[in-house]
Amino acid sequence: MPTSVASALATWLAAITPLPAERLAAAEALGRTLVDDVVAPGDLPAFARSMMDGYAVRRAWAGQEVALAAARHAGDDASLALPLDQAMPIMTGAVVPQGAEAVVPKELVERTASGVRLPAVIAARANIVDIGAEARRGATVLRAGTMIGPLALAALIALDVPTVLVRRRPQVAIRTTGSELCAAGPLALGAIRDSNGPMLAAMFSELGQVAERSSIGDDADALAALIRGNSAELLVLTGGVSAGDKDHVPAVLRDLGAEVLVQGVDQKPGKPLLLARLDGRLVAALPGNPLAVHWCCTAFLAPALRALAGLPTIARRVRVDLGAALPGSKERPWFVPCAITADGRAQPLLPASSADVVGPATISGYASVAAGAAPLPAGAPIDLLLCGAAAWTCA
Amino acid sequence: MPTSVASALATWLAAITPLPAERLAAAEALGRTLVDDVVAPGDLPAFARSMMDGYAVRRAWAGQEVALAAARHAGDDASLALPLDQAMPIMTGAVVPQGAEAVVPKELVERTASGVRLPAVIAARANIVDIGAEARRGATVLRAGTMIGPLALAALIALDVPTVLVRRRPQVAIRTTGSELCAAGPLALGAIRDSNGPMLAAMFSELGQVAERSSIGDDADALAALIRGNSAELLVLTGGVSAGDKDHVPAVLRDLGAEVLVQGVDQKPGKPLLLARLDGRLVAALPGNPLAVHWCCTAFLAPALRALAGLPTIARRVRVDLGAALPGSKERPWFVPCAITADGRAQPLLPASSADVVGPATISGYASVAAGAAPLPAGAPIDLLLCGAAAWTCA
Repeated sequence: MPTSVASALATWLAAITPLPAERLAAAEALGRTLVDDVVAPGDLPAFARSMMDGYAVRRAWAGQEVALAAARHAGDDASLALPLDQAMPIMTGAVVPQGAEAVVPKELVERTASGVRLPAVIAARANIVDIGAEARRGATVLRAGTMIGPLALAALIALDVPTVLVRRRPQVAIRTTGSELCAAGPLALGAIRDSNGPMLAAMFSELGQVAERSSIGDDADALAALIRGNSAELLVLTGGVSAGDKDHVPAVLRDLGAEVLVQGVDQKPGKPLLLARLDGRLVAALPGNPLAVHWCCTAFLAPALRALAGLPTIARRVRVDLGAALPGSKERPWFVPCAITADGRAQPLLPASSADVVGPATISGYASVAAGAAPLPAGAPIDLLLCGAAAWTCA
Repeated sequence: MPTSVASALATWLAAITPLPAERLAAAEALGRTLVDDVVAPGDLPAFARSMMDGYAVRRAWAGQEVALAAARHAGDDASLALPLDQAMPIMTGAVVPQGAEAVVPKELVERTASGVRLPAVIAARANIVDIGAEARRGATVLRAGTMIGPLALAALIALDVPTVLVRRRPQVAIRTTGSELCAAGPLALGAIRDSNGPMLAAMFSELGQVAERSSIGDDADALAALIRGNSAELLVLTGGVSAGDKDHVPAVLRDLGAEVLVQGVDQKPGKPLLLARLDGRLVAALPGNPLAVHWCCTAFLAPALRALAGLPTIARRVRVDLGAALPGSKERPWFVPCAITADGRAQPLLPASSADVVGPATISGYASVAAGAAPLPAGAPIDLLLCGAAAWTCA
C-alpha cells in the first residue's frame, strides 16, 4: 500500500537538513536565506535627511518673512550650519543643516522679493528623517531565516552591510534515463525526444536554481556508477523506477546502501515516485512519464529546495471557482492539471495519459481530487496548488 | 491634480505595443510569448505506446494461458508483430506490436510454468496510448499569446517542433541619478549608497528580465545625452523627477520631444512618477526614494514587461486577513507594504518614510488604502497586490 502524498512529503522534508552556510558580499545575496541575524553597522540615515524639496528653518520664524541662504542639494557639502537669519533652500535627500528645526515644503511658502514668507504653524522636525529613524546602529534589521528579496537586498546595501552569512545553494543534477531517449536527428520507431530533462531544468530555473543535466541509458552498472560518483546534494532521476524489467533504480539504490525514504505514493500521476538519501545527499527518482515528472517536481522537489535553504515549506493554495466540471476519482488521489483562464476560473486540462504534456501545457496549478470523490460541477470552488515560484512561498 | 493609479496605469499600458517577433529554437524559448499558433508537425505519440509494464495480447486470449515471446522495452527495435500464439512482455513507453489489441498490466496476470494466464476480461485498447492521442499532426497545440512555461517547453520538445516565433525580449536600462550616490569607499556626510540600482535589477531578474544598470550624476546635459543616446526599449530612471531645482528629468524629456504619458500620480509612495514615450521607446522616471521605486516598479514596470511581451496584464490580488491594524489615509491613496506571516496573515510594515526599505524589507505585497479611508482592525480581510513574479500572471 503506497503512502499518502502528505505522509510522503512529511517523511521527505523531515529527512532534509539545511545546507551549510557561506559568507557572501551582500550585493551577491539575492535569493539566499540568512543564517544569522543582520545587525545595522551604523545609523540609517546617518544624517538628518530632508524628505521634501523646501526650506530648512527655525520654528521661531513661523509666519515671518526670511531671507535665503545658498541652496543645498542631495550630495552637497554639508558642513555649514543654518544661518541665524536665513532659511536654507534644501532638496529631498540633502543633509538638514545644524540648527534647523523643520523643513517647510516649497508649496507651503510664499516667495517674496527678498526671500520667502513661512506658514504660521511649523511642526517640530516636520519633513525631517532623523538620524537612525530607519535603523539604529546595532539594531537587528533582518532575522535569520529571511530570504533576501529585492527590498531586503536594497536594505543591506543602504545599511552598508559588507557581507552576510547565507545558506549555500544546492548542486542539483538531473539525469534522465532510458534508451528510448533520442537527443537529435530523425526519430527511429519507438524513440522519443527527452522532454523531461529540459522541463526539469526549466522548473528549477523558475525556482531560482541552476540544475545541470544529462541523459543516460538503461544500464544498471552505468546507473550504479553514476549514483556512486554523484556529488550533487539533489540528484533527480527520471524513469527506471517502476516495475519494468529494466527499471533498475530501486535495486541499484538499495545495493548502494541508500536509505529509501519513500517508495510508491498514493497519487496519480507519479505513483512509482522513490525518494532516498545516500551519504547525506538526496536522490529523487521520478517516473519517466512527463506529466508525472512535472507533478512530482511541483509537489516534492520545489519544497525540498526550500528545506535545503532553511525556509518554511507551507504550500500556497489559491481558491478559485471551476470554469468546467471536474471529474471524480475512482481509485487513487488524483492531481488534476488546471489552467486559470482570463476570467480567473480554473479550467481542468485533462491529460490523455500521465505522459501527456501537450494537453496540460498551459496550466497554473493542480487541483486535488480525493480517492472516491464525486465529480464537482462548474462554479464549485477548489484549491489549486500553484506551480513555480508562486507555490511554497507564502510564509 | 495628479491622476489616479488606475488611470495612470491604463494610459501607460495603452501606450505600449508588443515587441517585434523573432524565431528561436524551441529549446531556447522558455519564458517567451508565442506570436503564432503552434501546429503539431506529426502525431504524438508517433506510435501506439504501452502505458504499463505488462503483456501485449489479443483479446480473444482472455482467460487463457499463453506462452511468451521475447520482451520489448522502451526504445527497443519494434519491427516484429505480435506472434499468433504468444503474448509479448512489454514495458511502459515501448511500441505496442502490430496485432496487439490491449496491454494487460503485470499485476493482473498469473505466471505459469510456460507463460501467463490472462484475466477473463480484456478491454479493447486497454493501457495503449494510440497514435496521435496527445496531438494529431496539423492540430493547433499552443495558441499565439501563450507564455512558454516548463510544461509548454516540454510539449514543444516532445512534439519535435524545431523553432517558434516569439516576442523579442526588451532591452531594459536602469540609470540611477543623483550626485549623492556613492558606489564604494567611505561615505562622506550626505552621501548614500545606490540601493535603487541593485534593487531594480533584482526585481527585473525576478521577473525573468535582464536589466543593465549604471549611475549618473545630476547634470542636465549629461542626462539629455543619455536619453538621446538610449537604445533600450525601457529606460528606467530614478531621482530627479520631482520639484527640486536639480530635478532635470521632466524638462529634459520635454526638450527632447518626449510624449509625457503620465506626470504625477495620486499615490503614496511615488507621487512624482513620470511615464513617457520617446521615439517608440518607453521612459519610466521614478522618484529617488527607494520604497517609491519598489512600489512604482511593482505597480507600473512589472505589467509593462508583460505588455511588451504581448501578455495580458491582470493584477493578481490575494485576499488575506490582517494580522494587525491597518491605519487609514488622510490625503492620498496609500499603498502599504505588508508581509505575509507564517499564519497566512498580512502584517503591515509601516515605513519610516518613502525612503525606508529597512522596515518593509520582508514584504510580500501591498495593501491599498483609499484617500480618507478609516483604519481597519486586525482580522479584517484585505486584498494584497503581490510583488514579483507572482503578480500580474493570473491569466
